[in-house]
Amino acid sequence: MQRLTQFVSVAACIAVTAAIALPVAAQFSKPEDAVKYRQAAFTVLSNHMGRINTQLKSSTPNVQFIQTSAGVVEAMSKLPWDAFGHGTEFVTNTKALPALFKNDAKVKELSEKMQEEAVKLNTIAKTGDTKAVRTQFGVLAKACDNCHDDFRAK
Amino acid sequence: MQRLTQFVSVAACIAVTAAIALPVAAQFSKPEDAVKYRQAAFTVLSNHMGRINTQLKSSTPNVQFIQTSAGVVEAMSKLPWDAFGHGTEFVTNTKALPALFKNDAKVKELSEKMQEEAVKLNTIAKTGDTKAVRTQFGVLAKACDNCHDDFRAK
Repeated sequence: MQRLTQFVSVAACIAVTAAIALPVAAQFSKPEDAVKYRQAAFTVLSNHMGRINTQLKSSTPNVQFIQTSAGVVEAMSKLPWDAFGHGTEFVTNTKALPALFKNDAKVKELSEKMQEEAVKLNTIAKTGDTKAVRTQFGVLAKACDNCHDDFRAK
Repeated sequence: MQRLTQFVSVAACIAVTAAIALPVAAQFSKPEDAVKYRQAAFTVLSNHMGRINTQLKSSTPNVQFIQTSAGVVEAMSKLPWDAFGHGTEFVTNTKALPALFKNDAKVKELSEKMQEEAVKLNTIAKTGDTKAVRTQFGVLAKACDNCHDDFRAK
């Protein structure tokens, strides 16, 4: 996760990161904003996974709808990760478990894997091969679950 | 706004739209989900408008950050509109004013204009011309405000 963030000014970044980790990525003015942002990205992502799933369950899946949503899924898959910065573990009203903030390497690995699978889904969707989309959709859903299993409250 | 929705099966669509408007776009299981979705899309959009603004205020704007966020802004600009379906005007905890649901044509016009300006921003961002980005950012912000002024609670 890109905790040491994109939007700190260079000077501020040098000043702070030499000694301590930033409390929360600087594109968020406070931890609550980061939580709201990551939840928003997941809300959109989840909705479009659902839309794809609806099509895949249909006897006449609409390839264009799948393609549109696969594009949104790929775009969303990149966004939430730098909103899990330190400080956000103290925000209530989130399903993120304390373990998430103690396992940076594992979470990074899982999030990168998930992003890879989302890219693949979008690439496959563009071919219009619904059967291949179905397979990759399952792979991506599993990649999501791999993180949810350990790091998200039921 | 695409109220008559992408994800209704054709049969259901024909059966229902002949007589009445769908209560809410069928990619949402209930109006509250539609409101949550559109708010999520606006949250992500707003955050990335903020990120671009931060760069534009900087004496050393990071073109790559602007480009990344402009891509997200364009993607998000397309999403919220079919989540303003009929039925969602009765959901509380939203800033959408009653007038929004009584002015379909105007809202459609404003939302399409906003999307056009978001596409332009992303196109200009790709050129790396920060001055041109600043101008178009202002145009897009105005296009957002044009809807907020009449249809969003302060």
